Amino acid sequence: MATVMPTSRLEAFSDGVLAVAITLLVLDLHVSDDKASGSLAHQIADQWPKFIAYLVSFLVIGVIWVNHHRVFALAARIDPVTMFVNLILLMSVSTIPFTTSAIAEFLRSGGNDSRLAVLLYGASMEGMSLSFSAVFYRLCRQGLLRRPVTRSQANRAILRFGAGNAIYPVGVLIGLLSPVAMLIIFGLLAAYYALNQTPIVPDADESGIEPEPDSVEGS
Amino acid sequence: MATVMPTSRLEAFSDGVLAVAITLLVLDLHVSDDKASGSLAHQIADQWPKFIAYLVSFLVIGVIWVNHHRVFALAARIDPVTMFVNLILLMSVSTIPFTTSAIAEFLRSGGNDSRLAVLLYGASMEGMSLSFSAVFYRLCRQGLLRRPVTRSQANRAILRFGAGNAIYPVGVLIGLLSPVAMLIIFGLLAAYYALNQTPIVPDADESGIEPEPDSVEGS
Amino acid sequence: MATVMPTSRLEAFSDGVLAVAITLLVLDLHVSDDKASGSLAHQIADQWPKFIAYLVSFLVIGVIWVNHHRVFALAARIDPVTMFVNLILLMSVSTIPFTTSAIAEFLRSGGNDSRLAVLLYGASMEGMSLSFSAVFYRLCRQGLLRRPVTRSQANRAILRFGAGNAIYPVGVLIGLLSPVAMLIIFGLLAAYYALNQTPIVPDADESGIEPEPDSVEGS
Amino acid sequence: MATVMPTSRLEAFSDGVLAVAITLLVLDLHVSDDKASGSLAHQIADQWPKFIAYLVSFLVIGVIWVNHHRVFALAARIDPVTMFVNLILLMSVSTIPFTTSAIAEFLRSGGNDSRLAVLLYGASMEGMSLSFSAVFYRLCRQGLLRRPVTRSQANRAILRFGAGNAIYPVGVLIGLLSPVAMLIIFGLLAAYYALNQTPIVPDADESGIEPEPDSVEGS
Repeated sequence: MATVMPTSRLEAFSDGVLAVAITLLVLDLHVSDDKASGSLAHQIADQWPKFIAYLVSFLVIGVIWVNHHRVFALAARIDPVTMFVNLILLMSVSTIPFTTSAIAEFLRSGGNDSRLAVLLYGASMEGMSLSFSAVFYRLCRQGLLRRPVTRSQANRAILRFGAGNAIYPVGVLIGLLSPVAMLIIFGLLAAYYALNQTPIVPDADESGIEPEPDSVEGS
Repeated sequence: MATVMPTSRLEAFSDGVLAVAITLLVLDLHVSDDKASGSLAHQIADQWPKFIAYLVSFLVIGVIWVNHHRVFALAARIDPVTMFVNLILLMSVSTIPFTTSAIAEFLRSGGNDSRLAVLLYGASMEGMSLSFSAVFYRLCRQGLLRRPVTRSQANRAILRFGAGNAIYPVGVLIGLLSPVAMLIIFGLLAAYYALNQTPIVPDADESGIEPEPDSVEGS
Repeated sequence: MATVMPTSRLEAFSDGVLAVAITLLVLDLHVSDDKASGSLAHQIADQWPKFIAYLVSFLVIGVIWVNHHRVFALAARIDPVTMFVNLILLMSVSTIPFTTSAIAEFLRSGGNDSRLAVLLYGASMEGMSLSFSAVFYRLCRQGLLRRPVTRSQANRAILRFGAGNAIYPVGVLIGLLSPVAMLIIFGLLAAYYALNQTPIVPDADESGIEPEPDSVEGS
Repeated sequence: MATVMPTSRLEAFSDGVLAVAITLLVLDLHVSDDKASGSLAHQIADQWPKFIAYLVSFLVIGVIWVNHHRVFALAARIDPVTMFVNLILLMSVSTIPFTTSAIAEFLRSGGNDSRLAVLLYGASMEGMSLSFSAVFYRLCRQGLLRRPVTRSQANRAILRFGAGNAIYPVGVLIGLLSPVAMLIIFGLLAAYYALNQTPIVPDADESGIEPEPDSVEGS
């Protein structure tokens, strides 16, 4: 029998990595009063790609956290494979400060530089999306969820959850033409997913049961 | 019915982002033994705006954390909108290391550079204050608090809580004349709010009930 | 009546700040393969003050954490003043990466530069020590401890706890003559305190009761 | 009697340090659109050692976290020595962003520079492995585990756990000939350990009891 573990420390470590990654994004923003740098207004105007990229990546990581929260609220336990795939998910997210910096630097360069930066940024997103889907797939298939789901319920949920896997490549294709358009699409998507209340597992809300273990502390 | 969730992981993630943001402030302080940099005493004296800005921003983020703690101690649950607005709050806080650096760099420049830096710093503060008010408003209006409050109680609390929304713009106006005065005002305000024991929801103390879920662990 | 709160989120936020501060220390270590930088062996040898300072500051922050853990394990609740003084403690700790960098840069400069760097580093330590004592004093005097202590017990504990307040200035005085000696003293002190099992409140061990709330989870 | 403490805050602080260290790795990756830096494709190709080193170190720290989780799930309490040795473990891990940067910088330099970088990187790994073994040894020998183990069970577990202490030096020896080979070995090892379900204490799975305290929250 595989070693199974509760989710609490996986959530704590994931919260930590996501919180650090999302906050490191700000290190890419800086201005200087060196004479050579020009006025502050000029520097701010000149760095607009950094501000857009910051905004989009912050929303993306924030929404990853929101969904990570939702998925692991459904999990009763985790096994070593889930732990490892979650590590790959965290690695994808940890690369976002780098790929955000790359897209911000080369957004206006045009040509191969812009396109490669778009591919790098898209790779972070797609790696994140695929590994997140794998985490969810594993939880469903290995019976690690808090409430058993039928095979068809799981299939529908996996399909819906995995839709992002197709959206990111489409965004990248658009990004090859216009990097800014890709960033706007990813930002809108993140905002949509943050607010969208689609239950990950159907019927979870209708059952009247509380999906989160910690709720016992609050009652 | 909207998906509702307990507050524990939102608090953990927010603690993480606030802890990272408050600690990243120190990265803006540095000295060097390069010959060109001059003596250490000279460098310290020359960087006084960085030290003042560090002090003020540390207090501001620290007090945001104190109040975040207080507000979510009153919340029984959160919904997706609260989660999203809290994310905007965290984004505002995450920009503080950048705007702190900007105000420190351009404090003595005078003219448009100083004024723009004041506006940037004020925008971080106002964004934080507005999104924090929105979080609190949402918790009150959606019945997410641990103890139901009457409409008039909620209104008074929201009004009092939102007072900061008006104070920050006033500070910015003063800052357009004197950036240092703005920093001193914001620092004093932060210290005042940290020590001020005003209950956010009236009568909470008089009721004799314990406002925090975790207290069961400690009793 | 003052608002009192449980200690859980204060501990979580403090853990976060201490964890980030202790890990940021490493950012001061770097080597480069630029031709101008010389061989790796040369760079390592040349940076020995950075490695010593890293080691000492890591131990110091680590031991602050250990003692923070011990003190708040004794606390039943906190009040706003404790929260604010704890914030000042965290601010002192957050400056350690900066003052560590300063002492490492100017350790070998001699003269006023070295002495000022010693004073800066000592100020971080003394600020930390004083605010930590104030936190402990507040917990004792305001009856916030888990188990009531008599006035004489509290006095003895406060005295013993505050001994560090006198040791750091002595270290600084020695540091004015030899910065390396100061670092060695601080490092040895940290190791001593980490291993030393002195109970902060006398009789805590003899009473046979469990001083930590979380222990109920583990039993 | 030695002061004993529950494991919760040690785990929280360790999670924090590991999360920050693993996420700081990304700060070593950066590209620039300066004319002097060449095309993005050129910069990416030129920095391949940084990407390999990032990948390997991320996996190594991630697997340290997974095992830290597993070991402390077996611990009922900790004593001051365990706390101190855990601090040394965290210090070893905290140096990994630095030694990762060193190996990435000097991987292709050849000669003494490469060999010294390999030794530095190996020292991080071996320091981590030895201190982790010491933590585990301490928990076994001091009766701090949740379930008593016989001396022979403990011996077998310690032996198995300490195997890594011998593997890292072998990797370093290979690294003296080929740094890339060492990185590949360490990466494969990390992936193997992450997925390998070997119970640390034999019979833990067969006993049918739940090894983790937090599980009461989830049941």
